[in-house]
Amino acid sequence: MTKLKRFIPAVDWLSRYDRGQLSNDLLASIIVTIMLIPQSLAYAMLAGLPPQMGLYASILPLVAYAVFGSSRTLAVGPVAVVSLMTATAVSQVATPGSPEYIAVAILLALLSGLFLIAMGLLRLGFLANLLSHPVISGFISASAILIAISQLKHILGLKVEGQVLSDIVPALLQGLGATSIPTLIIGALSVAFLFWVRSRLQALLLALGIAPHWASMLVKAGPVAAVLVSIGAVAGLQLADQVRIVGAIPQGLPPLTLPPFDAELWGKLLPAAILISVVGFVESVSVAQSLAAKRRQRIDADQELVGLGAANVAAAVTGGYPVTGGFARSVVNYDAGAQTPLAGVFTAVMIAITAVFLTPLFYYLPNAVLAATIIVAVLSLVDLDAIRRIWHYSKQDFAALAGTIVMTLLAGVEAGIVTGVTLSILLFLWHTSQPHMAVVGQVPGTEHFRNIERHQVITSDKVLSIRVDESLYFVNARHLENQIGKRVAGHTALTDVVLMCPAVNMIDASALESLEMIASRLASAGIRLHLSEVKGPVMDRLERSDFFEHFTGQVFLSQYEAMHTLDPEVTERAAKSVRTALKQVV
Amino acid sequence: MTKLKRFIPAVDWLSRYDRGQLSNDLLASIIVTIMLIPQSLAYAMLAGLPPQMGLYASILPLVAYAVFGSSRTLAVGPVAVVSLMTATAVSQVATPGSPEYIAVAILLALLSGLFLIAMGLLRLGFLANLLSHPVISGFISASAILIAISQLKHILGLKVEGQVLSDIVPALLQGLGATSIPTLIIGALSVAFLFWVRSRLQALLLALGIAPHWASMLVKAGPVAAVLVSIGAVAGLQLADQVRIVGAIPQGLPPLTLPPFDAELWGKLLPAAILISVVGFVESVSVAQSLAAKRRQRIDADQELVGLGAANVAAAVTGGYPVTGGFARSVVNYDAGAQTPLAGVFTAVMIAITAVFLTPLFYYLPNAVLAATIIVAVLSLVDLDAIRRIWHYSKQDFAALAGTIVMTLLAGVEAGIVTGVTLSILLFLWHTSQPHMAVVGQVPGTEHFRNIERHQVITSDKVLSIRVDESLYFVNARHLENQIGKRVAGHTALTDVVLMCPAVNMIDASALESLEMIASRLASAGIRLHLSEVKGPVMDRLERSDFFEHFTGQVFLSQYEAMHTLDPEVTERAAKSVRTALKQVV
Repeated sequence: MTKLKRFIPAVDWLSRYDRGQLSNDLLASIIVTIMLIPQSLAYAMLAGLPPQMGLYASILPLVAYAVFGSSRTLAVGPVAVVSLMTATAVSQVATPGSPEYIAVAILLALLSGLFLIAMGLLRLGFLANLLSHPVISGFISASAILIAISQLKHILGLKVEGQVLSDIVPALLQGLGATSIPTLIIGALSVAFLFWVRSRLQALLLALGIAPHWASMLVKAGPVAAVLVSIGAVAGLQLADQVRIVGAIPQGLPPLTLPPFDAELWGKLLPAAILISVVGFVESVSVAQSLAAKRRQRIDADQELVGLGAANVAAAVTGGYPVTGGFARSVVNYDAGAQTPLAGVFTAVMIAITAVFLTPLFYYLPNAVLAATIIVAVLSLVDLDAIRRIWHYSKQDFAALAGTIVMTLLAGVEAGIVTGVTLSILLFLWHTSQPHMAVVGQVPGTEHFRNIERHQVITSDKVLSIRVDESLYFVNARHLENQIGKRVAGHTALTDVVLMCPAVNMIDASALESLEMIASRLASAGIRLHLSEVKGPVMDRLERSDFFEHFTGQVFLSQYEAMHTLDPEVTERAAKSVRTALKQVV
Repeated sequence: MTKLKRFIPAVDWLSRYDRGQLSNDLLASIIVTIMLIPQSLAYAMLAGLPPQMGLYASILPLVAYAVFGSSRTLAVGPVAVVSLMTATAVSQVATPGSPEYIAVAILLALLSGLFLIAMGLLRLGFLANLLSHPVISGFISASAILIAISQLKHILGLKVEGQVLSDIVPALLQGLGATSIPTLIIGALSVAFLFWVRSRLQALLLALGIAPHWASMLVKAGPVAAVLVSIGAVAGLQLADQVRIVGAIPQGLPPLTLPPFDAELWGKLLPAAILISVVGFVESVSVAQSLAAKRRQRIDADQELVGLGAANVAAAVTGGYPVTGGFARSVVNYDAGAQTPLAGVFTAVMIAITAVFLTPLFYYLPNAVLAATIIVAVLSLVDLDAIRRIWHYSKQDFAALAGTIVMTLLAGVEAGIVTGVTLSILLFLWHTSQPHMAVVGQVPGTEHFRNIERHQVITSDKVLSIRVDESLYFVNARHLENQIGKRVAGHTALTDVVLMCPAVNMIDASALESLEMIASRLASAGIRLHLSEVKGPVMDRLERSDFFEHFTGQVFLSQYEAMHTLDPEVTERAAKSVRTALKQVV
């Protein structure tokens, strides 16, 4: 039972389910459903897929996540960035609009699901950490801009293909003359209305005396209002010939689908599936963790991988496309009081009812309105403030962010994310390749040793003490050799060098080799090398090697002990009153 | 003048050259020449090139390095591993034995030279650090095995093509029946003789009363003895029809060559040129540093790049192929008393004289003898002891080493080095992705805080103190969130968490985001987050960000101060006598 609980979290919370939770979950699911219906249709359109696939991706995947996921309140389904990535990946191997395009999108969900499950079972969740915050932030902002611009075609009523700015923008500009005026009016009104809802409605409702909780829920229903009003307008004003509409959506439950095995195609799609999985997982798990923390619950990253993987496999077998946990809808779910993943199951049931009975309702829904909901939703993802903050905090992080944004916009989502990861790893390695090193001396009147460039300290002519502020490993091992060589060169009176290691968390085999090299080079110049303040785990490992068989120096517990042993005159001087000591230094 | 000195080190040492240095340099150059002639011929054969190219690569490149290099004693020229890498790279684009093959090898030297110079001018020497010690060690050992096995064909008198074990070994086994017995006898005798020279001769000479210095020099002349004796034997016994011999080598100075520009070919060769450059540089610079340290001289890595780059460009314009600093010959040069790079110039002059006048001497030289010198030389590069030591020291480093060896043997030198670098970076990131974290408590009777799992310490129910032993950056930021979430979960009495950071050398933007996330999640659970013992540079950077605008906790200079402020009862208890304190803990 405990084991079952570990692999199927639902076993745990279902066994303690009660009536109070039920009513909370039901209410939350109704609100999420209202939000999810227009989103599902819109994101399917963004992915280049028929609208019903958005609904299909919002039924069984929710149930699968409810069973296997570890978050109580995460709401999964189609999301903007993953939909864009799906469009990019699928259009590389199939023609948009063709039956193959649909089949490949379904296959992508399967590959993505299998990859996520494999990562979870192999406990490889840490790989997702390779996506740094600046890379994700830059990627999401750039993708949002890319998505918003790509949706302009629906607002203008134009036909434009392409996944990168250099394809989309010229095509939009060329097509401007053919803009459909009724479409533009509907689209522009929708965008304006949705922006107004997002920025002003809540304040207005509060001013009208509506409770904050309900005001915030009503704001989320804005897209549904736009959808219903525009359907009414198109039908009433008989605009169906002049604006592109969603049209007939097949009624019924999702079909059962099983993507065929085609080794070549699987191989081609795998890199895209991996990127989609990792990006989706990182986004999803950070939402899940934020929400869990508020109620002091825990998220298990590896279980999340399995949960999201199961959701994607569920999407693949029921005619959907890649899904993940959505930020906005999860927050709504949480705020509406969802207690357990059963809220997701109720949402799935309501979406299924929609798919079976309500799709004729959307016949007259203009694509421009769906595009408007996408544009307003994604523009809130553009985080200029994060860009500014990262610029001020660290130029290195900013470089990774800028590289990601530029490559995402110019070369597409896949090139963007790969560039970002590579850049951030190389920049980190570069940063640690030149660790901060300081020659230290004793602070008069204390047993502390500090950087001679920052403090008035007492130093020895015979003993050089160098503190290194970084783990020692292959990327900086040679730098250490150089630096010590440089600092020793010319010091003719030198008899001892002490390497002070309080911030050295690791010494790998390369650094060990370098230390031996340094020791032997110093020895051939008649100088002994010593270590001080070596951390426990680092010392344990050094003792397991044959390092100390050749090492002729000593290992001191403290730098004070080192100096006291090697040049007691210094520690004596430092022990005298600060004034006397300072005089002697001058 | 100072500026000129910086870019052309020769300006410096030439201006202070004297007669004593001259005689030392001359003597060293004679000994190095004797060693270099058979090596040049042999390594050219290993690279699949005509023997004179080995000589050409040992003339102008030595002069170029003497002008631009920063080491006083490094001896450059063709070396075993780079020759193998050249053979691998060139045979991918040209047929061995064809004129194109020779042209491509020359071009490879040019590309390699330009790349090294560019790295040096852009001060990108740190990129070479991506080659960790286990990767280089594994790569050299595996290459040596590959080279030794590939040379067996010359010992057996067989024709065998291929650059990887899976090609060479089956071809050797199939050809065994066609072994040339005279060739095998000469080859086997040469191998036996050279092993004997290497392992026993020095002791014998010492026993005969020869001075250690001269004994060691005589040992280095072993290959020349083998060459002369075998030439005599083949000529005297008229074996030229039965064993493959070097044959006619064109007499004369190196030709002037200029590889034509062919964008496609350059693009194809560039990755190989980069690998050859980096491997050659890493090997060379470590020899140079070891020798420089003995005389308290300094090596400038970026200047070394320029020096080796100039040497390779020089090789390319005079019909040579990629060169680098050789380990054995540099040590011989140093031991023979070389004082300045002028020793290299003298060596170049003597090799030039050889190329002009002495090449007919080598007509009867059997290829089997050259193969024997290669085999004996490279087998000493196989470092089983390093493999054993790395296995004991760190399984992570061993994994990188094993991956490099296996891939080098099975898939060739390029795959081997790329696998090694990728593996070692990923393993390092993986290592830092789960930093050591310890809950700490106060050691009774002191102001120190230690791991509660290792020491008898006093802890607080209200204040949780966690020490993290790693820089905080994107790869471990999420782990930190998880760990703190995990350790806080369930502690209902908790009011404060203190993150103790004495070993945190860096907090990047991702980790900053995580810290803010942790603080806000803890806050929503009614817990405050504090920091203690934050390093100066890390604090500087945090203060530059808006972190402290939202941060509601405190930053304590010491963990003691943190505990004394947040839960003085603990520090009071600890201040009491150790005995009383221990009783209270129990």
